[in-house]
Amino acid sequence: MTRPIVALLTDYGVGTQHVGALHAVLARHCPEADRIDLAHDIPPGDVRWGALLLERLAAELPGAVFLAVVDPGVGTDRRAVALALDDGGRVVGPDNGLLGPLATRGERAVRIDPAAARSATFHGRDLFAPAAARLARGAPLIDLGSPMPISAVRQPVIPAATVGSRRIETVVLGRDRFGNLALAGGRDDLEAAGLAAGDAVSINAEAARVGRVFADVAVSALLLYVDSNSMLSVAVRDGDAAAALGIAAGDGVVIEAR
Amino acid sequence: MTRPIVALLTDYGVGTQHVGALHAVLARHCPEADRIDLAHDIPPGDVRWGALLLERLAAELPGAVFLAVVDPGVGTDRRAVALALDDGGRVVGPDNGLLGPLATRGERAVRIDPAAARSATFHGRDLFAPAAARLARGAPLIDLGSPMPISAVRQPVIPAATVGSRRIETVVLGRDRFGNLALAGGRDDLEAAGLAAGDAVSINAEAARVGRVFADVAVSALLLYVDSNSMLSVAVRDGDAAAALGIAAGDGVVIEAR
Amino acid sequence: MTRPIVALLTDYGVGTQHVGALHAVLARHCPEADRIDLAHDIPPGDVRWGALLLERLAAELPGAVFLAVVDPGVGTDRRAVALALDDGGRVVGPDNGLLGPLATRGERAVRIDPAAARSATFHGRDLFAPAAARLARGAPLIDLGSPMPISAVRQPVIPAATVGSRRIETVVLGRDRFGNLALAGGRDDLEAAGLAAGDAVSINAEAARVGRVFADVAVSALLLYVDSNSMLSVAVRDGDAAAALGIAAGDGVVIEAR
Repeated sequence: MTRPIVALLTDYGVGTQHVGALHAVLARHCPEADRIDLAHDIPPGDVRWGALLLERLAAELPGAVFLAVVDPGVGTDRRAVALALDDGGRVVGPDNGLLGPLATRGERAVRIDPAAARSATFHGRDLFAPAAARLARGAPLIDLGSPMPISAVRQPVIPAATVGSRRIETVVLGRDRFGNLALAGGRDDLEAAGLAAGDAVSINAEAARVGRVFADVAVSALLLYVDSNSMLSVAVRDGDAAAALGIAAGDGVVIEAR
Repeated sequence: MTRPIVALLTDYGVGTQHVGALHAVLARHCPEADRIDLAHDIPPGDVRWGALLLERLAAELPGAVFLAVVDPGVGTDRRAVALALDDGGRVVGPDNGLLGPLATRGERAVRIDPAAARSATFHGRDLFAPAAARLARGAPLIDLGSPMPISAVRQPVIPAATVGSRRIETVVLGRDRFGNLALAGGRDDLEAAGLAAGDAVSINAEAARVGRVFADVAVSALLLYVDSNSMLSVAVRDGDAAAALGIAAGDGVVIEAR
Repeated sequence: MTRPIVALLTDYGVGTQHVGALHAVLARHCPEADRIDLAHDIPPGDVRWGALLLERLAAELPGAVFLAVVDPGVGTDRRAVALALDDGGRVVGPDNGLLGPLATRGERAVRIDPAAARSATFHGRDLFAPAAARLARGAPLIDLGSPMPISAVRQPVIPAATVGSRRIETVVLGRDRFGNLALAGGRDDLEAAGLAAGDAVSINAEAARVGRVFADVAVSALLLYVDSNSMLSVAVRDGDAAAALGIAAGDGVVIEAR
């Protein structure tokens, strides 16, 4: 039994007609596929966060077909592309940075002809989903469009943390349902700043502690940790860090040893 | 490989126990089915919007079984029905207008006996899902209940746009996650009003432009367009038209040439 | 055709990367499984509500594998466990009360070694989902860990209703998308209080009526009924009882005959 996997990531909002339409097109054109909803709650148009999550989730599914659509530029001349990855996986989506991290392990790329779309505003349904279904059915990448250099696939602009001595300046990249905040940076930045588990720090002037698990701090206290995606992150134990700090994606964060 | 498709549309809210229960019943009674969530974010009890989305999404899945439940009258004497469509598809749900647009291409209808339901308030789980599972397993429509005329299936009340010279009066039918607003009316109404791409218009006195894609207007500007469901629609490029205009489903909209 | 069923219940929020990661791991390690989302909208950390819904939804799927994760204590020394049920079903999750109601019909239990997890904060992806996939592939329970007494599985603290003469004091356990409120208690409590369909009551001093279906009261009126999960419940016909009463999970409710 080797059902092909088609994994979806969009900013359409979960349970919406738009996600439903993608599934319907995939089911019609590749009924044997196992369709997986990776994430549909990307903030509208947040290509950067979509790119980061897509890269991390794709690591769980080597060889799958990924249908990724965070596409504020639909209907403009942004390219529609499909990539073949080094693990046999393939990716279809807009060339606006969303596919950039995966392209770094891409082997080939093609540009999909947008003329195939029957609507000007829903390329997910009309262009990308049919392309993903064809790949899942076994079509070679080259059948989907004209070759382009893999190096020409656009990269997203992902900010880096600025690391000083026992100090990190960074920015919120995204949040989850619990209010945990993912920041630009990772374990390396924490170590470069000379911070380690147990250290007392301030995060935007609020008292926090570096730890490994939520239980390393008291209930309602702030925790600085490296999350399950290897991103530097902030959480409140049994609480909501985004609410506690009053910050959201794009906002700045200053971490200092206390 | 010919797995039957069962496609679900409800106002249960996505990720809820109610949608989960439908899937559980379907999986138990028709394990071979490919279940598709078409939409679960219909505003509670909004039969009209549910009917419109069901009709459009069903067009993507000829021959499928549709399980549609937007059912504010559950437990009253509203009929429970099942329909056979001209493309081999079947539909199960409450006869409150939700199935009306599909009934216009229906061939046969039966009334399902509500006595089969073990609860009085969750006919989705107890009546409609088992019926959909039976159809997906190959049961003929007539096995589900007693015949009724297809013409007796209730139609939803869908308002029409009022078209004048370079003026359209209409109403909001629904919105999506991005705040794009679907209005009563379509391309015909736009043309009958003498409006075309590029025209400057006002929408409830706010400056807008007729276009085809979001990029036809500046960032944060209002766009009047025909959406991917062929509905007259309003969007804000990279923004939220529902918030910008302060209107929601049911509210009136006046479009005038400027 | 006997695809194994893996049914998921979490507080991750639907459509999120966390649910997506569970599906990805399951699809990778047990591609033949039929994965069902039972519910992902459990309020964050609400083990009690999760336990109640899991018990009820599991009744629809005898013999399935359940992957349940409401796990505020991830990373602490709370146990990770797997259970075998009397109907052939199996359950995997944290031993914090979430699995308690199912354990009452459990036959065997094992403690899963947490050392297998590659992250400290996402045992759903790293510990529980791989374990569920192994069970779905046919692994015996004992392969997952060391035996423990089924009676040692923790039970959630579920409050009971206090029943007087034509009076019930209880508490809100949960709510659904429509604002319907599930209360501690059931049909027995209603009968023990001497209340029956048609009776006029007050709920937190607001006028209500005991009934069986929403249509037993006028539009916008309060209804006291036993819901499709056999829980004593409050609804507003075509409205939102949680908003009308201004109460949420954990709040007290006093019902009195008028």
